[in-house]
Amino acid sequence: MNNPDEVLRAQEAPLRAGTDGNKVPDAYARAGVDISAGNAAVERYRELTSTWRHPSQLGAIGGFSGLFKLPGDEKRLLVGSADGVGTKILIAAAAKRYGTVGADLVNHCVNDILVVNASPLFFLDYLAVGKLDPAVAGEIVAGVQRACQAHSCALLGGETAEMPGLYQPGHFDLAGTIVGIVDTGDVPDPARVGPGDPIIGLPSVGLHTNGYSLARDLIPESEWNAPFAEAGANVSYLDALLYEHPSYYRAVRAIGRAAHIKAMAHITGGGLLENVPRTLPAGCKAVFEQSRWAVPALMVELVRRGNLRPDESYRTFNMGVGYTLIVPLADADRAKNAWPGAAIVGWVEERAPGDPAVIVHPARS
Amino acid sequence: MNNPDEVLRAQEAPLRAGTDGNKVPDAYARAGVDISAGNAAVERYRELTSTWRHPSQLGAIGGFSGLFKLPGDEKRLLVGSADGVGTKILIAAAAKRYGTVGADLVNHCVNDILVVNASPLFFLDYLAVGKLDPAVAGEIVAGVQRACQAHSCALLGGETAEMPGLYQPGHFDLAGTIVGIVDTGDVPDPARVGPGDPIIGLPSVGLHTNGYSLARDLIPESEWNAPFAEAGANVSYLDALLYEHPSYYRAVRAIGRAAHIKAMAHITGGGLLENVPRTLPAGCKAVFEQSRWAVPALMVELVRRGNLRPDESYRTFNMGVGYTLIVPLADADRAKNAWPGAAIVGWVEERAPGDPAVIVHPARS
Repeated sequence: MNNPDEVLRAQEAPLRAGTDGNKVPDAYARAGVDISAGNAAVERYRELTSTWRHPSQLGAIGGFSGLFKLPGDEKRLLVGSADGVGTKILIAAAAKRYGTVGADLVNHCVNDILVVNASPLFFLDYLAVGKLDPAVAGEIVAGVQRACQAHSCALLGGETAEMPGLYQPGHFDLAGTIVGIVDTGDVPDPARVGPGDPIIGLPSVGLHTNGYSLARDLIPESEWNAPFAEAGANVSYLDALLYEHPSYYRAVRAIGRAAHIKAMAHITGGGLLENVPRTLPAGCKAVFEQSRWAVPALMVELVRRGNLRPDESYRTFNMGVGYTLIVPLADADRAKNAWPGAAIVGWVEERAPGDPAVIVHPARS
Repeated sequence: MNNPDEVLRAQEAPLRAGTDGNKVPDAYARAGVDISAGNAAVERYRELTSTWRHPSQLGAIGGFSGLFKLPGDEKRLLVGSADGVGTKILIAAAAKRYGTVGADLVNHCVNDILVVNASPLFFLDYLAVGKLDPAVAGEIVAGVQRACQAHSCALLGGETAEMPGLYQPGHFDLAGTIVGIVDTGDVPDPARVGPGDPIIGLPSVGLHTNGYSLARDLIPESEWNAPFAEAGANVSYLDALLYEHPSYYRAVRAIGRAAHIKAMAHITGGGLLENVPRTLPAGCKAVFEQSRWAVPALMVELVRRGNLRPDESYRTFNMGVGYTLIVPLADADRAKNAWPGAAIVGWVEERAPGDPAVIVHPARS
């Protein structure tokens, strides 16, 4: 039986995040991404949207997606989420590998609405290019279509824009919006989360769609085709960089049939440190023990190359955990056994005033 | 009483579009936008999506938006549409005028779903920047929020991505997706359109969101601040270039209360020549008489500067008509009188084999 106390005792220079002891990571800034500007923009958006809000709009859990009461239907909510692929597309564009970015995007969006238990209805994409090459556009959209079909999600529409002057000839951007539906009673309620609840983690396969500005800095294009020694696989750096963002849809549905799910988080930009707290009630913190999962070889390499502090690594990369689910202690084993690779990666603990929202106990070396 | 025959008699070197006598316009190509590549990409998308299609997905009228049967509700459809602002944003970015592009985008999307009579439920935006300036991002999103509120449409979410390496520091791209709802019985049925039906036009205020690559070519940045002599207004070229894409929501609702609407088209890329045929049944053509509406001064100037052929002008710009509605002849006056500026701009005629889908009778000079 896993006992939260054992984990706390294993504590050694734990990584802190949240309201206190919060070091601003400069790894992103080094790569040209300004997290404080991002926070300021979000603050500005909050001010703007506080002046008027549609009465059918509900506060989304952690902001992974937006919830909207279906007019004339008390029992169901529509759920929407928009996202882009980020600078992973610059790698795909430079390498001329266009087949996976569409699935990266769809799967990212599927996971974002999965956090509130929504099932996908339809998806719309936006593809912007400097110079339209129909074969390339076709390859990109084929990836979108493939991932949509895998979720029985309609590819309802899209826009392809050719914008000379905004994009370089070989460059493109890809974004999309997913719309799903959920019964009101099926939306997880993080208020039920409490100390002692185990956190189930689903493994990541790589960077997914986050941390690429830094990764591109640390692994220059000249090295992409070099073999990347990864346990049991014969891959190049490029292969590892482009591993497809997985969908956690089937895993979450399997776990949901076996266990009660109290809250979920999709581990995207901000990593475990910023995504997990979005689904914790006040008075709770998440305590992870890194020895309980494997950090993908690519992230180990990036941390080494960039000499990244743990707080930088855990805020920039998912570090091996792509999605988290909080379940009651009694359901822990059923949840873990419902899907291959699912593991108990941490626990919810009481959060005293001044405590960080997330603690990660690094693995002993 | 307006008689279609009178218009046909006014014919003088009519402009032809459609399956026959279709000249490929080179004005866009001159500005770096490849229409044939666009058509090839669309063809490729059709092949892709023909391999699998969600059973709840319906064929959209003219492809302005996608229709999806609301699960468990036989009487209603969800309607989705994605779009971008196009290279109008390069003008806004260069001039540092960020307040209107958000409304351009939302209003464009509102009009796209209005074609099937849908009312907006919610909107999600995607803003991508080279270097995130929270004040600029706030100004852009404020425009989105303002236009959403004007339609009582929730701004349900959005994504702001900072992507150094893809966008120049002062550049940005803005795209969005709207979701609306419509009762199945309220979707216009273009099959009811027939010869003799009048076409009601709603006036455009400028380029809206189309033709900007060419416009930027013909009006260089050095002239933007020069006064632009427009009847009764004291504006610069820049003002005229950035006039906000209007929403036709209130106009269409007013006309819909006064008249039966058989079909509608939003006049976007491709102009009257390519958008109106999307809502005509086989065996029908649209015949417009340009003397029945005013071409905005900006388009007159662009046609003059570019020495554009009529088919180039009418395929690149809206030429003064932003939205069209086809109504029964008996409802023509009621429709026209229901909204200031609405006018009968043409008629539906029988289309013989070999006829173009659209004829525009130029105004006599």
